[in-house]
Amino acid sequence: MKYVNIFAAAVALSLSFISLNAAADASAEKARVVIQVSDADAGKWNLALNNAKNVQQAYGADKVDIEIVTYGPGIGMLKIDSAIANRIEDSKKAGVSVVACQNTMKNMKLTNDDMLPNTSYVPSGVVEIMKKQGEGYAYLRP
Amino acid sequence: MKYVNIFAAAVALSLSFISLNAAADASAEKARVVIQVSDADAGKWNLALNNAKNVQQAYGADKVDIEIVTYGPGIGMLKIDSAIANRIEDSKKAGVSVVACQNTMKNMKLTNDDMLPNTSYVPSGVVEIMKKQGEGYAYLRP
Amino acid sequence: MKYVNIFAAAVALSLSFISLNAAADASAEKARVVIQVSDADAGKWNLALNNAKNVQQAYGADKVDIEIVTYGPGIGMLKIDSAIANRIEDSKKAGVSVVACQNTMKNMKLTNDDMLPNTSYVPSGVVEIMKKQGEGYAYLRP
Repeated sequence: MKYVNIFAAAVALSLSFISLNAAADASAEKARVVIQVSDADAGKWNLALNNAKNVQQAYGADKVDIEIVTYGPGIGMLKIDSAIANRIEDSKKAGVSVVACQNTMKNMKLTNDDMLPNTSYVPSGVVEIMKKQGEGYAYLRP
Repeated sequence: MKYVNIFAAAVALSLSFISLNAAADASAEKARVVIQVSDADAGKWNLALNNAKNVQQAYGADKVDIEIVTYGPGIGMLKIDSAIANRIEDSKKAGVSVVACQNTMKNMKLTNDDMLPNTSYVPSGVVEIMKKQGEGYAYLRP
Repeated sequence: MKYVNIFAAAVALSLSFISLNAAADASAEKARVVIQVSDADAGKWNLALNNAKNVQQAYGADKVDIEIVTYGPGIGMLKIDSAIANRIEDSKKAGVSVVACQNTMKNMKLTNDDMLPNTSYVPSGVVEIMKKQGEGYAYLRP
């Protein structure tokens, strides 16, 4: 009976290792990066989209998760009058996630009607950036 | 005797796993972020304090550790003539840690008398930011 | 035979733990930071070099790995007419790695002849920054 317990413990430990290794492999397989846009600067917006494109070209679009988080003065990137609306649409079609911070919108009295169609939202851009880093995403602030 | 050894090894391994899991749980329980302020730009200083406030509101002030590190041109945020002295005081009362880089102060020939009362110091802002990331803090540069 | 297997499994698990701990110790021994330069701003370039120097002074130059990655508008830091060419040379002699993004160079139609002598290159600055973070480097954007 004792041996059975030991054996069961060993198996359980082995399985734990396998799942640990599987998690490590999964993160190794797919690169991930969260890109922060917090400046009211169209040059920075373009740079962020260029960076996303280069990353997709380097890894292959299906082998990297990219999320661009706009907040604070950077929220203008996703407003309906954004100077780079077309490029954002292209970027989203290419598989890049682009999200707007609802905290910022509330502070600036912006509603969804003030934003580009099909915009995705997160409650707090900063919290989103923290969470993504916690999940193993690299951080980039162009 | 051999079985006892095996059993002891299994127990030791199990304990190792328990402590690993405990460490993971501890970091999961409390969110942590280090916020860099290195620009001589009061707009950025306000944004950093707004970000800290939003993070506290999202997690609950007692469930997140926030440290704002000022260095280089950002050191002005904590100088005695800072344009946002009152807001910094409020932020510290709310539990946000705000520190000044002594390396920068030395280079700029600033003494503690040039800084806001009750300012906290670190020997090097950059090293502080590196250490915090090494401890698992997310990084944010508003 | 069964006991031997269990014992072998326990030994294998123990060895796994030892290697895990060794890896953790190795990363703890040597501090590492990747510094991003993506602005066309000589003040930022100087700040990046100052930061690298301070980090070396704090840890000891042989106890920290520092890589400065220039890309986008920051590539000017390593162009042949860079305002801080001498400082970059000093920094490299002190053991700081400084690299230029070939993606940016292609977009700006820059060749190696347009860059400082002895410049090191990476295919993509952003991918380099992501990879370094994946290896455990702290991230700093001065």
